[in-house]
Amino acid sequence: MFRFTLQSTANRARAGLFQTPHGEVPTPAFMPVGTQATVKALSPRDLADLGATMILANTYHLYLRPGDERIARLGGLHAFMGWERPILTDSGGYQVFSLATRRKVDADGVTFRSHIDGSAHRFTPEKVIVIQENLGADVITCLDECADPSDYEYNVHALARTHTWATRCRAAKTRPDQALFGIVQGGVFPDLREQSARFLMGLGFDGYAIGGLSVGETKEQMHVVLEVLDGILPPGQPRYLMGVGTPEDLVECVARGVDMFDCVLPTRIARNGGALTRTGRLNLRNARFADDPAPLELGCTCYTCTHFSRAYLRHLVTANEILGHTLLTLHNLHLMFTTAREIREAIMEGRFRAY
Amino acid sequence: MFRFTLQSTANRARAGLFQTPHGEVPTPAFMPVGTQATVKALSPRDLADLGATMILANTYHLYLRPGDERIARLGGLHAFMGWERPILTDSGGYQVFSLATRRKVDADGVTFRSHIDGSAHRFTPEKVIVIQENLGADVITCLDECADPSDYEYNVHALARTHTWATRCRAAKTRPDQALFGIVQGGVFPDLREQSARFLMGLGFDGYAIGGLSVGETKEQMHVVLEVLDGILPPGQPRYLMGVGTPEDLVECVARGVDMFDCVLPTRIARNGGALTRTGRLNLRNARFADDPAPLELGCTCYTCTHFSRAYLRHLVTANEILGHTLLTLHNLHLMFTTAREIREAIMEGRFRAY
Repeated sequence: MFRFTLQSTANRARAGLFQTPHGEVPTPAFMPVGTQATVKALSPRDLADLGATMILANTYHLYLRPGDERIARLGGLHAFMGWERPILTDSGGYQVFSLATRRKVDADGVTFRSHIDGSAHRFTPEKVIVIQENLGADVITCLDECADPSDYEYNVHALARTHTWATRCRAAKTRPDQALFGIVQGGVFPDLREQSARFLMGLGFDGYAIGGLSVGETKEQMHVVLEVLDGILPPGQPRYLMGVGTPEDLVECVARGVDMFDCVLPTRIARNGGALTRTGRLNLRNARFADDPAPLELGCTCYTCTHFSRAYLRHLVTANEILGHTLLTLHNLHLMFTTAREIREAIMEGRFRAY
Repeated sequence: MFRFTLQSTANRARAGLFQTPHGEVPTPAFMPVGTQATVKALSPRDLADLGATMILANTYHLYLRPGDERIARLGGLHAFMGWERPILTDSGGYQVFSLATRRKVDADGVTFRSHIDGSAHRFTPEKVIVIQENLGADVITCLDECADPSDYEYNVHALARTHTWATRCRAAKTRPDQALFGIVQGGVFPDLREQSARFLMGLGFDGYAIGGLSVGETKEQMHVVLEVLDGILPPGQPRYLMGVGTPEDLVECVARGVDMFDCVLPTRIARNGGALTRTGRLNLRNARFADDPAPLELGCTCYTCTHFSRAYLRHLVTANEILGHTLLTLHNLHLMFTTAREIREAIMEGRFRAY
């Protein structure tokens, strides 16, 4: 039901094919974020037109609203949101440690209050597996504790909990049609990252997520961690770098052995009037675009660039029109998918270094 | 360049074809409102997929932002907003009298302050023609004064100004590729409405808009006015009832001789979580939809109803997701276009009375 096939490599860079119950994911792959069972400002047909394969949804948000049991009654997340292609759910750990309030961690799990209504909740390893089995994504993940990446002592303790929780998540999982990824933690510390990878590999997972990066450390620190892990993680299974990144990050991190990515940045900056281009970001709120008849990026083949000027997009952003969010999101995701596809083709054709 | 052909009639009801430089508009036609050069929450391809023919844009809003001269420099409204089909612009009169502040009317025009930034502006008949020629819609309209529909004295004075302004608008118009519609005013008073229609017909316009209705009067008062005008207005030219309405309004007003409609209601209530159906409105914020797996309307063939449940739509609305606005707008406009098309087919096939 799941298979990851390496199709080509170029030094550390890998091109692969990840088969899931809802279809194949060619890697390297960028997954747009559908926090609340929708990639903000786009419809499923927009996403399919863009060539999205796997998308991410947030366990924490969907557990709180509309509720995982409700989604299960309505046929699971794919049917609920009208997305027939693969889905990955995170474990909710990151959101509990970044969004929820009055958080208390203990060896058994974490108690927190909803950021929506202040109601009290508790996540344990077993609980987040039940939630994710109710949601029914193709790939689910283990509960983890996200520590300050540069606090060694904190990471030592958090890692112990994360490893215990991974053991319990693996034991709790029941659905054969879901792959379970372990999440490697350990902050910016190569020894902790190595310890984490080896522990999780000892348990054995269908893939390995790399968590706790892109949260304040330097690019160099992130790259060192990826290089350490590339030497340890099993080559025959997918590696997913959580919460990263920009088009440049894709190139840099694929070059260090990563297969899968997700990030809110392309969709979030779109809703703030920002466009990603190959030569940098544009802020459409800037008055210099008011009379600019050019597309966001010359040569871009996305719907936005083939139909609308920067002047029109600036008008939509300035007038706070929903279409502005939609058109910028379309463009930004088009660039992410195009970048991932170009990287993949470069690896397959033996010219990744040049790319 | 413009031709209105009556194809079939059923008592007062008419099915026609309105030819414009950007294509044909089969009538009866419902025009969605693209206030700020976008029909809120939809892209031009969404609109084309729905079968929209002519859309409306607001002169007042576009004059203030991004500016009609800017739109002219960028190739006109069709190119600016990526809509290659027909467009109609209102004259801005209604918005000046409902949105703008510190308004002062005199015989020559109206001075007001922008609702956006408080800046001072002045509309005269000649000015709104220049603005609309800069925008470049297929159909443009005369500056009119919108009076309280039940205040006879006010309507007498407003009508005198509206008629003078219509004369000046007609004289000011220069572009042969734009049709100019006069706007019949006169509140709920049959004698004033008759006087207004006869005055405007004496000047001669390419079509006749009926303004100042759907602003607080009863349906019966509106219907009486329409019946009076149906007996007066030239049968060979299009009649456009401004700001109306619901699917039921379309049936009732086509039965009284109207060819064209526009209304913000289907798009506005969508953004408030409301769906129009053949049997009434649904408020998706209502908790009773939380577990409802049914589509908004059984048998509806729109994208929303063929892909998503009421439960999902309620979730999107509750979570304030943009996709909720988009999917409800798609459905509501689909119903308006379907209703207009069904009315047209019923007239053409001699079964409008039964419909």
